[in-house]
Amino acid sequence: MFSRIAEFHDWFEQEHTAHSFRVTVAPLDSLEGWSIDPETSAITHRSGKFFTIDGLEVQTNHGLVESWSQPIIDQPESGILGILVRRFGGVPHFLMQAKMEPGNINLLQLSPTVQATKSNYTRVHGGRSVPYLEYFMAPRRSRVLSDVLQSEQGAWFLHKRNRNMIIEVTEDVPLRPGFCWLTRDQLGALLKVDNLVNMDSRTVLAGYPFSEHDGSPERPVSARDGGFHQLLAGYEGRPVTMSHRDIAEPLSWFTEVKTRYDLRRRRVPLNQVKNWICGPDRITHELGRYFSVIGVHVEAGSREVSRWSQPLLAPVGQGVVAFLLRRHRGEHQLLVQARTQAGTFDVVEMAPTVQCSPDNYRGLPEHRRPPFLDHVLAAPRRRIRFDVVHSEEGGRFYHATNRYLIVEVDDDFPTVDRPDFTWMTIPQLAELARYGNYVNVEARNLLACLRFHSEPSEDGEGAGVDPHTERVTHANDHAGLGLST
Amino acid sequence: MFSRIAEFHDWFEQEHTAHSFRVTVAPLDSLEGWSIDPETSAITHRSGKFFTIDGLEVQTNHGLVESWSQPIIDQPESGILGILVRRFGGVPHFLMQAKMEPGNINLLQLSPTVQATKSNYTRVHGGRSVPYLEYFMAPRRSRVLSDVLQSEQGAWFLHKRNRNMIIEVTEDVPLRPGFCWLTRDQLGALLKVDNLVNMDSRTVLAGYPFSEHDGSPERPVSARDGGFHQLLAGYEGRPVTMSHRDIAEPLSWFTEVKTRYDLRRRRVPLNQVKNWICGPDRITHELGRYFSVIGVHVEAGSREVSRWSQPLLAPVGQGVVAFLLRRHRGEHQLLVQARTQAGTFDVVEMAPTVQCSPDNYRGLPEHRRPPFLDHVLAAPRRRIRFDVVHSEEGGRFYHATNRYLIVEVDDDFPTVDRPDFTWMTIPQLAELARYGNYVNVEARNLLACLRFHSEPSEDGEGAGVDPHTERVTHANDHAGLGLST
Repeated sequence: MFSRIAEFHDWFEQEHTAHSFRVTVAPLDSLEGWSIDPETSAITHRSGKFFTIDGLEVQTNHGLVESWSQPIIDQPESGILGILVRRFGGVPHFLMQAKMEPGNINLLQLSPTVQATKSNYTRVHGGRSVPYLEYFMAPRRSRVLSDVLQSEQGAWFLHKRNRNMIIEVTEDVPLRPGFCWLTRDQLGALLKVDNLVNMDSRTVLAGYPFSEHDGSPERPVSARDGGFHQLLAGYEGRPVTMSHRDIAEPLSWFTEVKTRYDLRRRRVPLNQVKNWICGPDRITHELGRYFSVIGVHVEAGSREVSRWSQPLLAPVGQGVVAFLLRRHRGEHQLLVQARTQAGTFDVVEMAPTVQCSPDNYRGLPEHRRPPFLDHVLAAPRRRIRFDVVHSEEGGRFYHATNRYLIVEVDDDFPTVDRPDFTWMTIPQLAELARYGNYVNVEARNLLACLRFHSEPSEDGEGAGVDPHTERVTHANDHAGLGLST
Repeated sequence: MFSRIAEFHDWFEQEHTAHSFRVTVAPLDSLEGWSIDPETSAITHRSGKFFTIDGLEVQTNHGLVESWSQPIIDQPESGILGILVRRFGGVPHFLMQAKMEPGNINLLQLSPTVQATKSNYTRVHGGRSVPYLEYFMAPRRSRVLSDVLQSEQGAWFLHKRNRNMIIEVTEDVPLRPGFCWLTRDQLGALLKVDNLVNMDSRTVLAGYPFSEHDGSPERPVSARDGGFHQLLAGYEGRPVTMSHRDIAEPLSWFTEVKTRYDLRRRRVPLNQVKNWICGPDRITHELGRYFSVIGVHVEAGSREVSRWSQPLLAPVGQGVVAFLLRRHRGEHQLLVQARTQAGTFDVVEMAPTVQCSPDNYRGLPEHRRPPFLDHVLAAPRRRIRFDVVHSEEGGRFYHATNRYLIVEVDDDFPTVDRPDFTWMTIPQLAELARYGNYVNVEARNLLACLRFHSEPSEDGEGAGVDPHTERVTHANDHAGLGLST
């Protein structure tokens, strides 16, 4: 356990230097264990497991584009993302792991206790067993705080789901090398560091119950931010209950949007995906947009197997994931979007107000740009409540980063005539996130950042939170990508 | 409004005699507007709307049979099942409709205010407009009590969903011919009559909030039933809230089962469905099991159009739909099953303890019969808390009836080593039914019967409820099917 967050950073730096990782970009046709289908160009693993890169054709009456086709990751089996919680001196601690993923910025990021595909934990690749897995498998005697099948990036995955679990144990748990216990406040501080707490951790943490009191005396709340932290402190640690009436309107709005739109998907051969080029080296969009599919060779000492090759999806440009937030009748509300993406399980999921790669819309007229994007990008510093760059899953995506933002707007901010958007309180969104395929991964990520958000540091400027005052830069940013926003 | 339930029966009888309905079974190849594909035998409407009878191949590692193929109804569009509620003198009244459906036992049954497929209300068949539809369409100013996309019979429909809505209005609502206002207690009494309250009404009523106080003074509760009615009276009319902890275990159990099993579906040509015979007259199973697909000609005066033809699915034999109920630590709990069916949207949905057609298992050894079926069928009268025969949707199914049962067991009734089953309280199951594809239509139907269950009549025998004391036989049971259980 760390008494100061600086101790964590020392430990994490040691983990970095103690292991030698090497990731080399390589041609797709050179990936050992993977083959490219000569007829369709689909990329599959020889075991038939893990995932496949295939083609998908999409038709919908929802959104800016009516039909398109694209490469997509097809990974039908669901893995386990699990965090173990144990109280020390009454204070919940989360067991986290310093884990290498080949697509990670900095390679090493902070992962859940268990982050394993079914192929991992049934040992398809003949690697080592997954530490702590036994705490998450049935039958369990421990207490379940959260357990739900959650979707992942609908723009890149077809129907992908992972089991998100938080399990609380009371018995002693051996601490293995590469793992550490962190308090809620420590996690909150680390969530303000760019590219450190990985996507899998963030989505799991979004399911942490409000009612779990952290054992600390009443949280210190600064008056300076004008209510934002008071609000969060007011929810957390209390048994937030939902009556039927509290959630009826958001559920009805979601049902309404679901029935308003259609979404039809059809598998197509990967090499018949329009406007994409399938080469032996990589798969790219002909205008250099959206993403590429590349290959990597990996050499690592701290993973299940010491060397492997695999394809990764490499997005073009950094995305923006943002909630607009308002104060309304004494409560904070988030502007939630019902969004259709290629791989969405149902017609829509609930998404942040803005979720896009701005590069793809550069130079387009306003009506062809995503709603509220320009408002978010132009927000003055004093309106920004949260602003951190986080990475998406480094086991499938190469250097995929999003700028996660929360921007406060006035109570009378105009959103009428936008039936795909609705305002929700934080407990409403958190309640919906307990059910699968309601709240998408980007919204859950922001929800975790929001809920684990600890006090702004005294160095923060004005009313806003300045995450950059706590930014830690890691040595191994081998790709030299700029991390600043 | 009816001051006594006998007045309702008089009104309903008048509705029966005021309209002339005629339904004639006819060969499939004689159905006007429908065609049989010469290559695949699939049955489609010339508009491409309504529904299609097609073939489905299923593979799963869940349940008694690993793979099979079968005819299935494919109806991708979702309709609206909506009930309008208005308070008169503070007491909520439900606007119900006497509606003819060609497959109904007695032809006329009690339907929701609105029961319309998308084809109906967008007038694909050029019929009359749907009464009261405007109350259910966005934008609404009225209060939403319930609004959720719910699945229907997974054994017969592929991915079928309807929008289940309850809307409360405060303004005056004109009462049209064929409609009536009923109180909660009146609906409860009618739910104890065989084949009267149709499936669409039952599934919508399952979503009625606990918190809606009915405006009456405290319900009279009989001590004779040993707690069952006290229990219900204890929930209803109070704001039942769910904390995170209250629902965490049921959600985790459901997630666990979902990840344990696989379900793969593949469309196949209808005439390649194994062990089924596709004739010009009807489609039947070669051993006469499961169901047939038949055609009907309909002549009616009170429907959207006055005459039409359509296919219907006619099940073989009556089904059994039953919950086992126990008292455990002062609360009643239902034994919920995680069940995979051909058309389930996800791998499993929550189902009643028993849900099957006993005829299909006749003579099989115990390990090949559905768990708990024999216990339900052999239950002594004093253990039976509810026992009514209800019809399934008469617009798709011909004389499809299930015997809906609630059977009480001892607290220590053995259910261990049955990981597909779990005990849940009534508020837990009701909470889960607010989300789509959690609780299946059979379980929702029983939930509605349970929740709207009013006091047993004084004629009731012993501790049990005897629905037969209130049984009403309608004149127009033209098919002469016996209605008794």
